[in-house]
Amino acid sequence: MDNRSIGVFDSGLGGLTTVKELKELLPHEDIVYFGDTSRVPYGSRSRDTIIKYAKQDIRFLTGHNVKMIIIACGTVSSVLPEEVAGSFGIPIIRVLNPAAQAACAVNRDGAIGVIGTQATVRSGAYGKAIRSIKPTARVIGKACPLFVPLVENGFLGPDNQVTRLVAEGYLNDIKKENIDTVIMGCTHYPLLYDVISDILGSEITLIDAGRETAHFAAATLKSMGLMNEDTARAGRAEYYVSDRIDDFSEIAARFLGSSIKGDVSTIDIEAY
Amino acid sequence: MDNRSIGVFDSGLGGLTTVKELKELLPHEDIVYFGDTSRVPYGSRSRDTIIKYAKQDIRFLTGHNVKMIIIACGTVSSVLPEEVAGSFGIPIIRVLNPAAQAACAVNRDGAIGVIGTQATVRSGAYGKAIRSIKPTARVIGKACPLFVPLVENGFLGPDNQVTRLVAEGYLNDIKKENIDTVIMGCTHYPLLYDVISDILGSEITLIDAGRETAHFAAATLKSMGLMNEDTARAGRAEYYVSDRIDDFSEIAARFLGSSIKGDVSTIDIEAY
Repeated sequence: MDNRSIGVFDSGLGGLTTVKELKELLPHEDIVYFGDTSRVPYGSRSRDTIIKYAKQDIRFLTGHNVKMIIIACGTVSSVLPEEVAGSFGIPIIRVLNPAAQAACAVNRDGAIGVIGTQATVRSGAYGKAIRSIKPTARVIGKACPLFVPLVENGFLGPDNQVTRLVAEGYLNDIKKENIDTVIMGCTHYPLLYDVISDILGSEITLIDAGRETAHFAAATLKSMGLMNEDTARAGRAEYYVSDRIDDFSEIAARFLGSSIKGDVSTIDIEAY
Repeated sequence: MDNRSIGVFDSGLGGLTTVKELKELLPHEDIVYFGDTSRVPYGSRSRDTIIKYAKQDIRFLTGHNVKMIIIACGTVSSVLPEEVAGSFGIPIIRVLNPAAQAACAVNRDGAIGVIGTQATVRSGAYGKAIRSIKPTARVIGKACPLFVPLVENGFLGPDNQVTRLVAEGYLNDIKKENIDTVIMGCTHYPLLYDVISDILGSEITLIDAGRETAHFAAATLKSMGLMNEDTARAGRAEYYVSDRIDDFSEIAARFLGSSIKGDVSTIDIEAY
């Protein structure tokens, strides 16, 4: 047993969709969340810059004495080398492998589509992770760079014409490839679930990388005996961001699916 | 006469639309351009963060011994306090005042609309600049946060359905306000000129803040006797960015209206 917090970080607030899943699965665990709102988005940046930013994010969380870190950012999960993630002395879980595993479990004869940021798709990391489990799998990556700004600007809901047009443009491209499984490789995308699943149709299984990762993290804590023993109380959450944002509570609630309970502080991430 | 370069910076590559105008107006001047591609966009960030980033951008350019700096970023132009801009010992020109001046010159009885990023509109800086010239002017600000990602992802051209839908959503709001003039307060927006002017209609005059600023900068250099005396040769340009971007030449050419001629280097802006 280990009563320390779980650290979770993302380039911005999208990772709160993973926190939402964690809270349901592990209601007694404390969570420290960091969203790098002064440097979001990561997905269009270069590999070197993403690695530099990710190291600072991890150092910030290890400074909070967390027992595990979840990289809720699809971009960092795809780009950060294993030896870097392995050098911090605590389990660092990325959204990549749990999502790849879930995709391989449901995948039939068709290809596996991976939608994510430009950096995620360019890295080819999902392809490697999937083929390490299922060597014959065919993987089709498709960058959807407008999905993040659409979500952040509230262009949500199945009836949003703009989001539907953009999504059709991206998804019709990969539908042609005889896919039967699609990984949503970015934590913003679950907010577009209705539109994406509607366009892809019921024959294609959608995998939510953040949700799979929350399940994997819960299983890891249990198997390593690292659960919080104090099950009489509800877990607490602390939120840190690198830029004050005026409408933090409103945007965060959109991702969390409920209103924010817990302190929100702004920190200088460049100092880490 | 002064043969040093003109410094120009923007949060990203949108400021190249201003460089394009400068090259036409001042073909013998050398230009040093900095685009903060590792931290773009600025428009959704807080005032403090924008000021911190802007100071680093200015220090980078003053380190290149420039004779003048043009802030080609609508967000920084709106947010940076005058006393900060005035503390560097060289003229620092922002897109704000030339655009306000041009808008007041063409404005008739209707209101003046200002479209820009969230930070630009929230700052109220255009309203202040306009009313200092024309105290009775009515100013209507409208943040258009999706315009920048649309431009950066190549959703251009008058026939682009997505861009048209988004633009109608933003612009129909301000059309109701009996406007006769609209300032495009962000250097990305000239690439959407066709769509914006089509939706606003021929009765509304569109002001390109970057173009007005290039004219103002040229006039300032002339009036201060700071022109480059070597008129036998074409001006050179150096380009600096804070993140390597794979398709720099292609994206830059979109803004410049011609292919990039000159060196492109990546620098660490956090060190300034």
